[in-house]
Amino acid sequence: MNMSRRLAGEFLGTAFLLAVVIGSGIMGDRLAGDNVAIALLANTIATGAGLVALILTFGPISGAHFNPAVTLCDVWFGQLTSRQALMYIAAQVAGAFAGVAAAHGMFQEPLFFASQHIRTGPSQWWSEFIASFGLLAVIISCSRTRPTSTPFAVAAYITAAYWFTSSTSFANPAVTLARAASDTFAGIRPVDAPGFIIAQLLGAAAAVVIFKWLFASEKEISPYGNQDLPQPELRDLP
Amino acid sequence: MNMSRRLAGEFLGTAFLLAVVIGSGIMGDRLAGDNVAIALLANTIATGAGLVALILTFGPISGAHFNPAVTLCDVWFGQLTSRQALMYIAAQVAGAFAGVAAAHGMFQEPLFFASQHIRTGPSQWWSEFIASFGLLAVIISCSRTRPTSTPFAVAAYITAAYWFTSSTSFANPAVTLARAASDTFAGIRPVDAPGFIIAQLLGAAAAVVIFKWLFASEKEISPYGNQDLPQPELRDLP
Amino acid sequence: MNMSRRLAGEFLGTAFLLAVVIGSGIMGDRLAGDNVAIALLANTIATGAGLVALILTFGPISGAHFNPAVTLCDVWFGQLTSRQALMYIAAQVAGAFAGVAAAHGMFQEPLFFASQHIRTGPSQWWSEFIASFGLLAVIISCSRTRPTSTPFAVAAYITAAYWFTSSTSFANPAVTLARAASDTFAGIRPVDAPGFIIAQLLGAAAAVVIFKWLFASEKEISPYGNQDLPQPELRDLP
Amino acid sequence: MNMSRRLAGEFLGTAFLLAVVIGSGIMGDRLAGDNVAIALLANTIATGAGLVALILTFGPISGAHFNPAVTLCDVWFGQLTSRQALMYIAAQVAGAFAGVAAAHGMFQEPLFFASQHIRTGPSQWWSEFIASFGLLAVIISCSRTRPTSTPFAVAAYITAAYWFTSSTSFANPAVTLARAASDTFAGIRPVDAPGFIIAQLLGAAAAVVIFKWLFASEKEISPYGNQDLPQPELRDLP
Repeated sequence: MNMSRRLAGEFLGTAFLLAVVIGSGIMGDRLAGDNVAIALLANTIATGAGLVALILTFGPISGAHFNPAVTLCDVWFGQLTSRQALMYIAAQVAGAFAGVAAAHGMFQEPLFFASQHIRTGPSQWWSEFIASFGLLAVIISCSRTRPTSTPFAVAAYITAAYWFTSSTSFANPAVTLARAASDTFAGIRPVDAPGFIIAQLLGAAAAVVIFKWLFASEKEISPYGNQDLPQPELRDLP
Repeated sequence: MNMSRRLAGEFLGTAFLLAVVIGSGIMGDRLAGDNVAIALLANTIATGAGLVALILTFGPISGAHFNPAVTLCDVWFGQLTSRQALMYIAAQVAGAFAGVAAAHGMFQEPLFFASQHIRTGPSQWWSEFIASFGLLAVIISCSRTRPTSTPFAVAAYITAAYWFTSSTSFANPAVTLARAASDTFAGIRPVDAPGFIIAQLLGAAAAVVIFKWLFASEKEISPYGNQDLPQPELRDLP
Repeated sequence: MNMSRRLAGEFLGTAFLLAVVIGSGIMGDRLAGDNVAIALLANTIATGAGLVALILTFGPISGAHFNPAVTLCDVWFGQLTSRQALMYIAAQVAGAFAGVAAAHGMFQEPLFFASQHIRTGPSQWWSEFIASFGLLAVIISCSRTRPTSTPFAVAAYITAAYWFTSSTSFANPAVTLARAASDTFAGIRPVDAPGFIIAQLLGAAAAVVIFKWLFASEKEISPYGNQDLPQPELRDLP
Repeated sequence: MNMSRRLAGEFLGTAFLLAVVIGSGIMGDRLAGDNVAIALLANTIATGAGLVALILTFGPISGAHFNPAVTLCDVWFGQLTSRQALMYIAAQVAGAFAGVAAAHGMFQEPLFFASQHIRTGPSQWWSEFIASFGLLAVIISCSRTRPTSTPFAVAAYITAAYWFTSSTSFANPAVTLARAASDTFAGIRPVDAPGFIIAQLLGAAAAVVIFKWLFASEKEISPYGNQDLPQPELRDLP
């Protein structure tokens, strides 16, 4: 019961995240024509702003992970069991595909169609490693020391990462899978997805190792959630 | 007396909201020429920033609904009587038209002139459904769990929604009616307005149903307002 | 002594504000060429972001008025004597011209040179009236009900107002005078300045009248400053 | 031990800062082509957003200086010993070069290659003086009076300074050195670096002198850090 609400939150939040990423990519692409910088700028501003709204909205319900890498780190920190994490990840992946379909419906595209956007090679994998390392660094530190700022920090980080990485910073395995099903501005070839996901998980793992050391002297490490707000549904899981 | 101040707040706030939407649309359109992406980017940034300022300013006075869909949900949640809601909606619609006229005056356009901008069809209605569902989701969850962040969450959401929906996210029946009276960048043909409004109300209703369930275990649901601030005028209505 | 620090704050803050407005106008104009929309977008983002930083920085020192219209309203609300207000306004005007000169020095322009940018006519005066009305509305309401958000609300408002008014929202007599001494992107012909200033003062006065009524039931009206922070230098004036 | 964590924080944070500045410069340059205004706009938004995320993330660990000028002012205010400051500066410079290399790796550029971007002359030095004066003003005042807003104030200031100075506001000696090793959009000729660094240090020193006077009546001056948060690692240094 408790868990069903949290899974609904992850599903809805991840669906909206993908709708924002895919939808604003299509809109930017259509309006900006061959000016890719303008299209990416619109895609960036929409994604950054969308993340602020979505994390503030779904944070109190599910913790607003929207990202299997974040959920797996939660297991590492002892906040979730493996079984709970699997359910979270299933909700995220399902939500991600639902969001892609919702965006395609808004722009009269097929529900799903495999992307032909080539995104591969060491420099892009290195980008995904750096992007995911940074994302987890932001989440671990902020949620532990100033949780009310976490939604703004995460959104600001992704806003920057869209531009400072050559991969435009997917940094999220569920997002990567779903973007493979969209042959639009934000897509990625299905065959390129595994390379991205492996790099993302390695980057996230590196962040956990380093930030566990950085915060080692603290008595309790509770990396996610908003401890300064009453969160009855997040306290005790079934 | 109390209510008259609140209605003045809704009137002024909605008027400024429309002045921002219409005025920045005209300015962007005139300066950007045929580069619609730049025009929409300017329109987006102005609207998002304007919403931050307006909700912070009028929140303590009227709750800063500016939107009949929000007011109707307030009735559903038992925060307003139907009669109070009608007065709110009348103030919003009057303010919306006043804001359109004010913007037209700033840019030497006729006070009102019917839009010829075609906005219709299932994908645009679906966009309005999604946009309004998300807007109410943000408002219900944030105002209940972190009200001081609500102005930023709502503004960020609309910033994103201008780009991730094919309708550019009106998500507001009063705004829709008033934009029909402006044959400028942000306009909508009067004949297309009903389709948008129906989709908006359905999306808002769906959000209320789902978020009532998501927050069902909480003892009290008070979806709007800023409970952590002293708000004498919002406490007891006549 | 106390007052000298506050005047130094107004001088420095207004100087930086003008350096931001003029400097980013020149930079945008030079880089964007004949794409005025991009130039104004850069000018807007720089001004909005600059205001956040400057109001946060100088708020605890002088209240961060930077604007004679704001200072005069402070007199109306009984927060400053007329003599103190005159000193504030002198510091603001001197700072504004210093900031223009500083910006010109950064971009290898003459220290001062009269603008030839025509900005006149009823629609621009109406724009300045609306812009100033809204600015004072934001300041009066936010500083009274949520002072820690005021810097963000004011900056967001000006960000929007650059685009929703045909005058690009000067909304500040000291800024208007100093911009007349800069024949660059942000300039205004000296002969056009009085019309702007009169419209600004009328708009500000209208806001004070209306918001005095809106907040009439409250026991104490203290429209500026950040009451929730320790501000020894702002408490008792000589 | 304590100090090693703080140095790791400065290293990582400065590395990410440079990765953001250099990486988004390359991306903007590649996508925007000869439209330098769009490239700088992307560079600006990425840097501003990145600073929000990085200062929030590393503030509780090291104070998030990322800047020798800030560290030296900390010595002036008696917050750090000279020896500690030297270690901080070494970590910042090392991190800055690591970040440049990381960004180059993401965009398939050589690890390091000397910039040929000419940035010299009195107007650019004056720009760096002003930029650094303002940066230290923001940091000293905000961290002393409203530390939770400092990350947003610093990021907003740099966002504005990219546009209102003709040098695009380096304002940081470590950043200047490392950008000399990148022949990309954000680079600076090695021979031009000393002029920038001298101007930066003079601007920072001027800010300390003036703001020491502005805040002289206060009993304790603690210009950096976030005193309202528990910061065990920042309290007592070895």
